[in-house]
Amino acid sequence: MKIVVLKFGGTSVGSAERIKNVAKIVTSYLKKKFKVIVVSSAMGGETNRLINLSKEISSNFTSSEYDTLVAAGEQISCSLIAGRLNDQGHLSRSWLSWQIPILTTGNYSYSRIESIYKKNIINFLKKGGVPVIAGFQGINSENRVTTLGRGGSDASAIMIAKFFKAEKCVIYTDVDGVYTTDPNVVPKAKKIKKISYEEMLEMASLGAKVMQPNSIQDARLNRIDIEVRSSFKNKAGSLITKRKNISTKNIIRGVSFTKNDAKITLVGVKDRPGVAAKIFEPLFKNSINVDMVVQNISSYKKETDLTFTIKNEDLLKTEKLIKKNKKIIFKKLIIDERVSKVSIVGVGMITTPGVTYRMFNALAKKNINIQVISTSEIKISVLVERKNLKKAVDVLHKEFKLDY
Amino acid sequence: MKIVVLKFGGTSVGSAERIKNVAKIVTSYLKKKFKVIVVSSAMGGETNRLINLSKEISSNFTSSEYDTLVAAGEQISCSLIAGRLNDQGHLSRSWLSWQIPILTTGNYSYSRIESIYKKNIINFLKKGGVPVIAGFQGINSENRVTTLGRGGSDASAIMIAKFFKAEKCVIYTDVDGVYTTDPNVVPKAKKIKKISYEEMLEMASLGAKVMQPNSIQDARLNRIDIEVRSSFKNKAGSLITKRKNISTKNIIRGVSFTKNDAKITLVGVKDRPGVAAKIFEPLFKNSINVDMVVQNISSYKKETDLTFTIKNEDLLKTEKLIKKNKKIIFKKLIIDERVSKVSIVGVGMITTPGVTYRMFNALAKKNINIQVISTSEIKISVLVERKNLKKAVDVLHKEFKLDY
Repeated sequence: MKIVVLKFGGTSVGSAERIKNVAKIVTSYLKKKFKVIVVSSAMGGETNRLINLSKEISSNFTSSEYDTLVAAGEQISCSLIAGRLNDQGHLSRSWLSWQIPILTTGNYSYSRIESIYKKNIINFLKKGGVPVIAGFQGINSENRVTTLGRGGSDASAIMIAKFFKAEKCVIYTDVDGVYTTDPNVVPKAKKIKKISYEEMLEMASLGAKVMQPNSIQDARLNRIDIEVRSSFKNKAGSLITKRKNISTKNIIRGVSFTKNDAKITLVGVKDRPGVAAKIFEPLFKNSINVDMVVQNISSYKKETDLTFTIKNEDLLKTEKLIKKNKKIIFKKLIIDERVSKVSIVGVGMITTPGVTYRMFNALAKKNINIQVISTSEIKISVLVERKNLKKAVDVLHKEFKLDY
Repeated sequence: MKIVVLKFGGTSVGSAERIKNVAKIVTSYLKKKFKVIVVSSAMGGETNRLINLSKEISSNFTSSEYDTLVAAGEQISCSLIAGRLNDQGHLSRSWLSWQIPILTTGNYSYSRIESIYKKNIINFLKKGGVPVIAGFQGINSENRVTTLGRGGSDASAIMIAKFFKAEKCVIYTDVDGVYTTDPNVVPKAKKIKKISYEEMLEMASLGAKVMQPNSIQDARLNRIDIEVRSSFKNKAGSLITKRKNISTKNIIRGVSFTKNDAKITLVGVKDRPGVAAKIFEPLFKNSINVDMVVQNISSYKKETDLTFTIKNEDLLKTEKLIKKNKKIIFKKLIIDERVSKVSIVGVGMITTPGVTYRMFNALAKKNINIQVISTSEIKISVLVERKNLKKAVDVLHKEFKLDY
């Protein structure tokens, strides 16, 4: 069987009109002789509506009931989609996770799919049926409803694609693919035809809001091709796939950036072994994610300056934690909220020397000062003043021939 | 165990505020050492919202998907109620019908509860837990969601009360009980403290919109006491119970009426054996409910006049069916839409002679002409001109000492 998993996000099923459009998309795959499994999110706005109700009820709403509550959203969208497919003459039905079943492990609201019982769905596909599966949810060993966390419908789609050995998984959303950078910042940004899992992971965690990093990681581990495309236009999207399927003609796949960073510098830190660990330990314990870190070389005074970045929203908490941390001694704490991180991402840089030089040189020519640097195998990130953000993204996009 | 089933209707759980109030009501029963089972409807307006979505999707929406769709409404309200009870320190959880399970038979959207698996709920009650059960729904032998039809949450509550041998079933709604007649028509209408199932059935089917007749019948067959009361005020409601629990001091329990009747008279029908059956057969086949019927005694001409009443909304369809009915011959068809049915209901009339006379006499004194009469063991109904409706209800309410 040539199976395709089609996943529809909230805006793609946000109204009766949008759901009718979903049925049209499904029909187009059936015409191409695909066996189609639909996975749907809740209608746009529905999950938030339910979450807000839970907040009105209790500031500490039970997580097991929360999961049962929000799971109702996908039950609604899936029955509507199946109803529309029936209306259009197709054999189709909704499948809720307890009906399949989809078994999960882990805590409520953050569960992971462990197994999917395939027999009933396979039989239905063989009869020519289109199963419409509620995304984002499962049941646990206590026969209770669980959810996979926000963006969990992507995770559902990918695990379903894995268990049913689908040819590919198509993520229908309201953007038409992955771009070389944010088109709102750089109008010359281009849609990327193919991008590797690893590049997408770097782009996603750096700010390209197309898919949750966890889901991309799941797809990578299971070698599942993902196409991200718009349900609003009939245009090819971007394929997220294995490195070997992609040309490395382009050294850099894209330029990503963040806007909500803050930089903290501890001046005159008593430099003793393990001091960095002592600084970061309370931050980790409070789920504050430290991103870029740079430490000056110790001077003869046995003092050093330590600079690191965090998300803006964690700033107040971080400041408090550092100030009450008795295990460290420092002279001054300097905070700068007017910074942004700009990154170039591409598997091509592994085999191409001089990428770092070209990046720094291009920024220098525009008088953009680099404050902090961090690198991975396929990514180079620099921290710049926020006022230089657009200029930096522009020049890098051009330098690495993404404007074409 | 002293079990009470508390059922909350849509307006009683219509907002976060209302749900907080539900938790207060539950707490008051727990304080009285009751084991409480909550049964809830969907939040007011939710079911209609979902039904409207299904209509936008298809004018012929699949009934199995319809049931899955609308069942989401109770999933939402029940998890919110359980979440609130948790917030208030009570052990509580939502139970969806597949989790119990509640098994139903019959067609989608009109299913009936066949059995309820009790063990898990009983264990939870023994631990001091408050199960919050989704009303209006069940699952069928194919493991799919079914619903019990509109007003089905009452049916759920009564069947749950039956299976768990509850002491009573309290129906919380937005009216504070059953009245001797509609207080909007007769300001002197009084709340009835106790009413028998049979009287309630006559009142309900005649227009008192407190509970669905099917649910009252279920309660009657299973001898379950039902209290109907308001969740908006802390006041005793009306108890629907066995005849033997009720004083027959009052001959008449209430005066009910309808506003949407139409009267049809066939003049000069050829009177042959089985002619009435020939007239009514096509109506029954088209689900048109014929209510009152009167046929004149045949004259020497072998002709008769046949008069019957139907609901106004069925009038056009009925007219068409009669006109194209080749099996009957008649001279003229007369339609009167300006009629109303007024009924007096009470088990006391069984043992009290002269009730009919008193009724007719009271109406005659007010110059109200009686067009058609129908009677049952505990009810006398008359058809009057609609303009006389209020006057008729008033005089009967007074005549049978319901004004007190």
